[in-house]
Amino acid sequence: MTLAFQDIKTAHNRIKEHIVKTPVLVSKILNDKLDAEIYFKCENLQRTGSFKFRGAINKILKYKEECGHFPAKIVAVSSGNHANAISYLANKFGIEAVIFMDSRVSSYKVDFARKYGADVQLVAGRSDADDGAAQKEKEGYFFIHPSNDEDIVCGQGTVCLEAIEEIGGFDAIFASCGGGGLAAGSYIAAQILDKKPQVFAVEPDLANDGAISFRTGKIHHLDKPSNSIADGIRTPHLSARVFPYFQKLDGVLEISEEEILKWTQIASLRLKVLIEPSAGIALAGAIQFLRNNKFTQKPKILVILSGGNMSVQTAKMIWEKDYFSEF
Amino acid sequence: MTLAFQDIKTAHNRIKEHIVKTPVLVSKILNDKLDAEIYFKCENLQRTGSFKFRGAINKILKYKEECGHFPAKIVAVSSGNHANAISYLANKFGIEAVIFMDSRVSSYKVDFARKYGADVQLVAGRSDADDGAAQKEKEGYFFIHPSNDEDIVCGQGTVCLEAIEEIGGFDAIFASCGGGGLAAGSYIAAQILDKKPQVFAVEPDLANDGAISFRTGKIHHLDKPSNSIADGIRTPHLSARVFPYFQKLDGVLEISEEEILKWTQIASLRLKVLIEPSAGIALAGAIQFLRNNKFTQKPKILVILSGGNMSVQTAKMIWEKDYFSEF
Repeated sequence: MTLAFQDIKTAHNRIKEHIVKTPVLVSKILNDKLDAEIYFKCENLQRTGSFKFRGAINKILKYKEECGHFPAKIVAVSSGNHANAISYLANKFGIEAVIFMDSRVSSYKVDFARKYGADVQLVAGRSDADDGAAQKEKEGYFFIHPSNDEDIVCGQGTVCLEAIEEIGGFDAIFASCGGGGLAAGSYIAAQILDKKPQVFAVEPDLANDGAISFRTGKIHHLDKPSNSIADGIRTPHLSARVFPYFQKLDGVLEISEEEILKWTQIASLRLKVLIEPSAGIALAGAIQFLRNNKFTQKPKILVILSGGNMSVQTAKMIWEKDYFSEF
Repeated sequence: MTLAFQDIKTAHNRIKEHIVKTPVLVSKILNDKLDAEIYFKCENLQRTGSFKFRGAINKILKYKEECGHFPAKIVAVSSGNHANAISYLANKFGIEAVIFMDSRVSSYKVDFARKYGADVQLVAGRSDADDGAAQKEKEGYFFIHPSNDEDIVCGQGTVCLEAIEEIGGFDAIFASCGGGGLAAGSYIAAQILDKKPQVFAVEPDLANDGAISFRTGKIHHLDKPSNSIADGIRTPHLSARVFPYFQKLDGVLEISEEEILKWTQIASLRLKVLIEPSAGIALAGAIQFLRNNKFTQKPKILVILSGGNMSVQTAKMIWEKDYFSEF
């Protein structure tokens, strides 16, 4: 099927009593400085600290709608935030959960998932994680992929839907990109607007498989694991079910590690929120867009701050250098 | 006059359309771990990044109510957050503002006030600042003290009022303490409750003039400037107009620098908000209270997170050491 706005709306009706309607924040000083009107949708304040909660709960509640009960056993793969959402929900609904994660993921995210009782299996890389999950699926576990799933994409699209319902239209929307679910969901949600906004995915230079895929028209796989500070979006390739929507985006922006840290720091201090580099990168994308275009009037921009889960080590790197005073 | 709940309510009615009704956040993991029910009132998300905005706007709007126009010229003294509120409001209402600050205050706070056009005068210490302000007052400037003023205290009390209106009663309330306005305002607001909560002021060991004043029954002045990381509450002495209420508190808790950093880090990461050490110290106070008392049921606690304004240097110190993983 081809997903449309109404599918996002249906997902939102399903999950809205279970999620936080996250605030949209604005910094007057930042807007004055950038000569733009930027709205930040704060999914770091979502349950379990990221937008991933929306897709996961949509998938689980839809299962219950269709089967009359929750799945008994869930298996997932995750770079971290999806694991947090799954483990929290499994705990809440009394579901057994096994989660396969690359051993290089954020320790914060592993600890969180274990705290909620998930059986976290650390494996050598994402493809080993996929293999482990496939095996469990054969054993009867209900598999919840973090992005390669239409119910997940619809859940993630509710971030953008809420922002549109609260603020109205935008000229451009920026979403960070791992598997591509948030960018695809945002694109689909934005189709409700008469005046279509530009929608951009934002990626680290060090994990730019999405940008290559966008340029070449076929899904590119990173040839080695990425070491980007943005640990939530090091995913080695886009999801197949996401790609048809991803190809309709207006572009994929690639960001250096330095710019990721810089805009994560500035957004944190201007908005007074704790965000992870995988979230701050979306502002870096908006900055690149503002620098490379001319505008006849202030562009109205939505920046999705995807999450706020990180280790102290990562937080320390954000504050290591002072980007704020120079800006 | 003696202030009562109704005075806080009047202030709230005056200012409520101009302020952010800040969110009250809860961390399930933190509550499970501490065996308590803690509610965090997030004044870091208040306009200009701290609760000080409430008192300042109450004072200015009351002036306008009484005189029919805004004051033409304002003078203030501040350790930082009051300066931010005053400079923002002066800019918004077209008022000339002069602010005297100790030269050791946070550079973030000085830059912010200057950005909004205030004439910031950096002087050697707080008593020089007081002298400068007194001189300006003689020249016809309208003086807005950060705490020694009943309208300011009533404005600050609206933080606690909103929390009570949203959540209901509490067993204990924790407010950080510089001049004492937030603690006094919280105490007065809490008097609306039939079952009176305990109300505590929380101070750094390195600026414990409030604790000494509370014990001795007279206002103690620090004999030298404090170097506490909690730069918002290094104030050398309580305000005289605040002291009668301050003496009715249930205690003043003194916190080490290490504990300030620890609980600022943990609150930030659990709640996904950026808070300054002068805010995190209130959680450290609640932790001390939980450690030193026995409870027959989970205590219901209000922690006021007073603000989120800080330099990158201060943020860096919060994340220098990993307190989170051990907790």
